[in-house]
Amino acid sequence: MTTVSVDDAADQERKAPGRPRDARADAAIIEAVLDLLAAGQSADALSIEAVAARAGVGKATIYRRWPNKEALLIDAVATMKGPLPMPAGESVRDDLVMLVAAMRNKRMEEYGKVTACLLPELLKRPEMYRIYRSVMEPRRDIMRQVLRRGVENGELRADLDIELTLLMLAGPTITQNMLRWNPNVPDEGYAEALVDAVLRGAAA
Amino acid sequence: MTTVSVDDAADQERKAPGRPRDARADAAIIEAVLDLLAAGQSADALSIEAVAARAGVGKATIYRRWPNKEALLIDAVATMKGPLPMPAGESVRDDLVMLVAAMRNKRMEEYGKVTACLLPELLKRPEMYRIYRSVMEPRRDIMRQVLRRGVENGELRADLDIELTLLMLAGPTITQNMLRWNPNVPDEGYAEALVDAVLRGAAA
Repeated sequence: MTTVSVDDAADQERKAPGRPRDARADAAIIEAVLDLLAAGQSADALSIEAVAARAGVGKATIYRRWPNKEALLIDAVATMKGPLPMPAGESVRDDLVMLVAAMRNKRMEEYGKVTACLLPELLKRPEMYRIYRSVMEPRRDIMRQVLRRGVENGELRADLDIELTLLMLAGPTITQNMLRWNPNVPDEGYAEALVDAVLRGAAA
Repeated sequence: MTTVSVDDAADQERKAPGRPRDARADAAIIEAVLDLLAAGQSADALSIEAVAARAGVGKATIYRRWPNKEALLIDAVATMKGPLPMPAGESVRDDLVMLVAAMRNKRMEEYGKVTACLLPELLKRPEMYRIYRSVMEPRRDIMRQVLRRGVENGELRADLDIELTLLMLAGPTITQNMLRWNPNVPDEGYAEALVDAVLRGAAA
């Protein structure tokens, strides 16, 4: 059986000191989770059996890597988020546009759907919500730092409410990703439009 | 059986022309749906049997009022939203604060949790998403009209992007309701803070 031999290979890798764990099996497992969630499977209903079957590995391979389903789900979310974006550090406006654009693209829309499928689970289980936040926090910290830099170098108002501004940049973006809340807001040029509107203000 | 007698009573009411349908049974059914969703039951897993049992009515009573589970879920969401808010029509800023505050309160936080539980279902089923939007659209139209009035009377910029501004007021609010996305943004004075930040702009 393929399943058993993949298991065995993974076992041998773990036992050999300094050898990396089987990255292909890891990727297949994570991808299986994301596929199942994106297909509308609720996190609640998602089973390790189904993940194992789809990834073509044994359940034992999954349990050797992740202690439980929650840990696996969180890793899948973190993987989908991709690497942390790095601001160029010149114009605060341009850095914010880059960070918002990194939140709003096809991959993130897919991610929004997956997160939507995770929500019932996240809201039911405080410990899972905490892990989820620990994946998100480094990302929002990057945006927080750009905003602080803007206040310090005078690009932004001295009395700016950093936390509220963070929410004003992320909230519309998350809502579009998850719900396509306002289909009348075009995707083309979204990040520039949002950042400039937040900077400029709506008052006459 | 109580169940049968409630069914019969409802039957008789429907048959008597001009008699209102049993509002108490309707309310009990809707409340049962919302209770089950708020308890973390996914819309997928929610059964008419469970709703009937919790509401203390027969399944037939539910099916006489709603053709299917989707219609019942949508009605439950609409009921939770409550009556449409009416702007006073004097200051655009004050009307926006009222509309945002109406989206962000304990009841709406509960509603956010319920919507989160409905999301996987909404995203899987275009016809359900369309009905959901038909519940939401009249509400966002009210805010749209306030923004248009502001542009016309000079309170807001002449070149204001109405659709984007709508998203900037609703997106952060929905994100807080559903995810408590930024716990560092206080609930106290939230609506005023958001509206004023949107109006004033972040640029120095």
